[in-house]
Amino acid sequence: MRHEHLVTAKQLSRADVEAVLDRAAEIAANPAAVRERHSDALLGLLFFEPSTRTKMSFETAIKRLGGDVVDMGSVDSSSVKKGESLADTVRVIEGYADALVLRHPRQGSAQMASEFVDVPLVNAGDGAGHHPTQTLLDLYTMREAADGLDDLTVGIMGDLKYGRTVHSLANVLTNFDVRQHFVSPESLKLPRSVRYDLHEAGAKVREHTDLETILPELDVLYVTRIQRERFPDENEYRAIAGEYQIDEETLEQADDDLVVMHPLPRVDEIAPEIDETDHARYFEQAHNGVPVRMALLDMLLENARGDAE
Amino acid sequence: MRHEHLVTAKQLSRADVEAVLDRAAEIAANPAAVRERHSDALLGLLFFEPSTRTKMSFETAIKRLGGDVVDMGSVDSSSVKKGESLADTVRVIEGYADALVLRHPRQGSAQMASEFVDVPLVNAGDGAGHHPTQTLLDLYTMREAADGLDDLTVGIMGDLKYGRTVHSLANVLTNFDVRQHFVSPESLKLPRSVRYDLHEAGAKVREHTDLETILPELDVLYVTRIQRERFPDENEYRAIAGEYQIDEETLEQADDDLVVMHPLPRVDEIAPEIDETDHARYFEQAHNGVPVRMALLDMLLENARGDAE
Amino acid sequence: MRHEHLVTAKQLSRADVEAVLDRAAEIAANPAAVRERHSDALLGLLFFEPSTRTKMSFETAIKRLGGDVVDMGSVDSSSVKKGESLADTVRVIEGYADALVLRHPRQGSAQMASEFVDVPLVNAGDGAGHHPTQTLLDLYTMREAADGLDDLTVGIMGDLKYGRTVHSLANVLTNFDVRQHFVSPESLKLPRSVRYDLHEAGAKVREHTDLETILPELDVLYVTRIQRERFPDENEYRAIAGEYQIDEETLEQADDDLVVMHPLPRVDEIAPEIDETDHARYFEQAHNGVPVRMALLDMLLENARGDAE
Repeated sequence: MRHEHLVTAKQLSRADVEAVLDRAAEIAANPAAVRERHSDALLGLLFFEPSTRTKMSFETAIKRLGGDVVDMGSVDSSSVKKGESLADTVRVIEGYADALVLRHPRQGSAQMASEFVDVPLVNAGDGAGHHPTQTLLDLYTMREAADGLDDLTVGIMGDLKYGRTVHSLANVLTNFDVRQHFVSPESLKLPRSVRYDLHEAGAKVREHTDLETILPELDVLYVTRIQRERFPDENEYRAIAGEYQIDEETLEQADDDLVVMHPLPRVDEIAPEIDETDHARYFEQAHNGVPVRMALLDMLLENARGDAE
Repeated sequence: MRHEHLVTAKQLSRADVEAVLDRAAEIAANPAAVRERHSDALLGLLFFEPSTRTKMSFETAIKRLGGDVVDMGSVDSSSVKKGESLADTVRVIEGYADALVLRHPRQGSAQMASEFVDVPLVNAGDGAGHHPTQTLLDLYTMREAADGLDDLTVGIMGDLKYGRTVHSLANVLTNFDVRQHFVSPESLKLPRSVRYDLHEAGAKVREHTDLETILPELDVLYVTRIQRERFPDENEYRAIAGEYQIDEETLEQADDDLVVMHPLPRVDEIAPEIDETDHARYFEQAHNGVPVRMALLDMLLENARGDAE
Repeated sequence: MRHEHLVTAKQLSRADVEAVLDRAAEIAANPAAVRERHSDALLGLLFFEPSTRTKMSFETAIKRLGGDVVDMGSVDSSSVKKGESLADTVRVIEGYADALVLRHPRQGSAQMASEFVDVPLVNAGDGAGHHPTQTLLDLYTMREAADGLDDLTVGIMGDLKYGRTVHSLANVLTNFDVRQHFVSPESLKLPRSVRYDLHEAGAKVREHTDLETILPELDVLYVTRIQRERFPDENEYRAIAGEYQIDEETLEQADDDLVVMHPLPRVDEIAPEIDETDHARYFEQAHNGVPVRMALLDMLLENARGDAE
C-alpha cells in the first residue's frame, strides 16, 4: 500500500485491502514481533466528536506497536472554542505527532485536513462521510471467519439509509466476488446514490424487506442498529425495530457456519442468547480493530519514514 | 494470592493481604527492579463515575511497572450513552487490555462484570459496595507506620454510617489482632449489618461518641469526612462536624507515636498544623496507593499469564 | 540553570535563558539522542483550567524524552470539587510524579504550590500571572529565525493591555540588546506597571498606534489576538481589530527577512495568504514548544536527581 493518508475506503484497491489484512493477520499471529516496532512514534488523536470505542482501539494499536498518543481531548477544552480553524489545528498538532487520527462531524473534513499536513492522517469518521478503518476491520473479520472474501454471500440488515458503516462496507465488497443482500424496512433502504455506485461497480446486489427468505443462503449476516431517532413515532419504531432483531429462533433456519457481525454498540438487535453460540463474532470483530489498525499505522508510518529518507 | 479478580476486600484472607503488602514493601524498597516488569501490559480504565485520585494512582502503578493504560474516558462520551450494557462494554474493552479497573456507581457491578471477562478485573469502587485497593493501602500504611498489624489499637472516626472505606477496613482488620474503637455522632454510627459482621468475626469492637476518653490508648487514628449532605440543617452539620475535627490541641492527650490517617480529600477534619507533625501519615497513605496497586497488578497479571500458559 | 522550579520568566537570568535555548537547540538537532533519557519519569499534569495546546506540548515533550504523564483530568471530575485545597492536591499528586506542570486560574498559585512540593514544578499559566515556557519558546523561535537575540528590532502588536504572553516576553527581552516597539490601539496599550518595569530595566521601548511607520525597521513582528470580549460594542471591536490585522498588502513595506510570530490560536489577525510566505513562523513557533519544554524538563529533572543524591 503506497498511500500517504487514509481518508476513504474507496481509495483502497483490492490489493491495498489484501495488503493491510495480510499484515494484520501476521501481527495477530505474533504480536510480540512488533512490540517495539514504533517505540518512537506518537499518534495525535483529534476527536472533534466523541467516539470512545474507536479512540481506544487506535490508542491500543499504537501502544501495542510500542508507541504512544498525544490526545487533543474534548473540543470543549480546546483552542477550537476560541475560533481556530481545522487547518490551523492540524498544522499545530502535526508538530507534536508522527501521524494523526481525525474524527470530525463535518463531511469532507478529513480530506481537507490531509491536504494541510505532511504526516500520515487517518480518517476515523467524518460525519455522514467515511470511516475506512471500520470497513477494514469488518473485512478482516469476514475473511478470518469465512475463510476468504471470495464466493461469499453476505446479508446486511438494519438501517441501510443512514448507516455510514454499511455504505462503506458495501462499496469495498464490490472488489471481491461477494453476493450482497440488503435487508431493511422500506423507509430505511439503501440511498439511491449508494445503490447506483454498487451497480456501476458491477456488484451482485439484491434488496429485501424480510430476512427469512434469504437467511439460509447467507455465509455472513451483518446486523446494524435501527435508531429510535429515525422515527417520529415511538410505537412505529418498536414495531419496525422488532422485526429486524435476531435471536435463537430467528437463526434456526441459518447455516451452522453463519457468521453474525455487528459494529457495536448494540441495543436490542441481537439477543444475548446468541453471544454464547458459534455464530457470534461481534466481540471478536471489535477486538480485530486492534491488529487491523496496527497494520495500517505500521504501513503508513513506514511509508512516511521512506518518504522522509 | 491465587485470585483471578479483586472484587471485594472480603475475598482476601490474612495470607492474601500479607502477600500483597509484602510485595508492595519489596517494590517500594526497590522500584527500579520492576521498572520493565510489565512493559507489554495495557491496563483498561473504566471509570463510570469520576474518581481522579484512584484513577491516577492505578495509572501511576501500571506505568511504574513499565506498562500503559487505555482509558474509556468519561461516560458522557462513550457508547454507554447509546444504551450499551455493562457486560458488552467490558467484553469489548477486554479485547484491548491485559487487565481492567472498573469503577461504577451500581453496587454489585464489579462482581457481575468479572463474570464476563477473561482478563483480571479490579474493583475500584462500586457504589455503596467495595473498594478493596483502598483497604489494602490503608493496611499497608498502618503496618509500615505501626510496625505490624497485630496487637494494635485503632480508632476510626467520622462518618461510620455511609463510609464505604471504613466498613471495608473494619472488616479486613478482623483478620488481625486489632482492637477497634469507633467514634462518631449518634446519627452516623456503624450500620447494624457491619456491626453484626464484626461480632461474627469475633472482633474486639467498642463504640464511642467522643474521642477524648479513648485517644490516649490509640496507636492509629483513622479520620474520615463528615459530609454536609448528610444533614438537613447547615447549623447542625457545623456543630457536629466541629466535634470530630482534629488539631494540635485535640492531640495533646495522644501518644507521641500516634499515627493519624485519612483517605483524603479532607476538608476541615484535620487542621493544617497537624501536617507538619510526625503524627501525619495521610499524604504518605495516598502515596502508598502506588506500591500497593503495583503489587496487586503484578500478582494478578502474573496469575493471568500462568493461567494462559 | 540551577532552579528547582520554574514559576516565572522573571526568575530567569540571561544565562538561564541561554542555557535552556542551547539545550533545546541540541535536542532539536538530534532528538534520537534523548529518546530514552527520562524513560522512568512521570510528569504530573494539573490543569485547573483547559489549555489543550500547552498540555499537548508538555505531554509530547516528556514522551519524546522517553517518559510518560499522569493527568489529573478536568477539575469537574476531581477531588477539587469536594473542596480540597490546592496545597493538598499537589502534595498528593507529587507522590505519583517526578515533576509537575500546573495551570491554574488564580494568580500566584504556582508560587504557592511550589512551596509545598519537593519535585520540580513548572508554571503553565496562573491567571493574569506568568506562563514562562511560552516566553522561552518565543525567545527560541526568535533566536533561531533571526540568528541570535542581540541587536534586534522587535515589534509587538495587538492586545498589549491584557496579553500575559506579551508582558512576560517584553520583560525577558530586556536581558538582551533588543529594541522593542509596541503597537496597539490606545485602549489596549501596555499597562503602566509593565512600562515601568521595562524602563527600570533600561529597555529601549517605543509605543505606537500604527504599524506602518515602524514596520520597515522590524526584524520580528509578534502579533497577538484582540479579543472581542474587551469591547462593549461589536462594531467598535471590528473597526479596531481590523486595523491590527496582517495580510500580504500590509507586509509590502516589510523587510524580506521579517519574521512574523503569533502565540496561536489566531482568528483573523493574520490572513491565511501569509502562511505560505517565508515570513510565517507561527506554526514553527508552536512546534518549538516541544524541544524547549524537553530542554526545560530535562534540566529540572537532572537538578532534582542531583539534589536527591
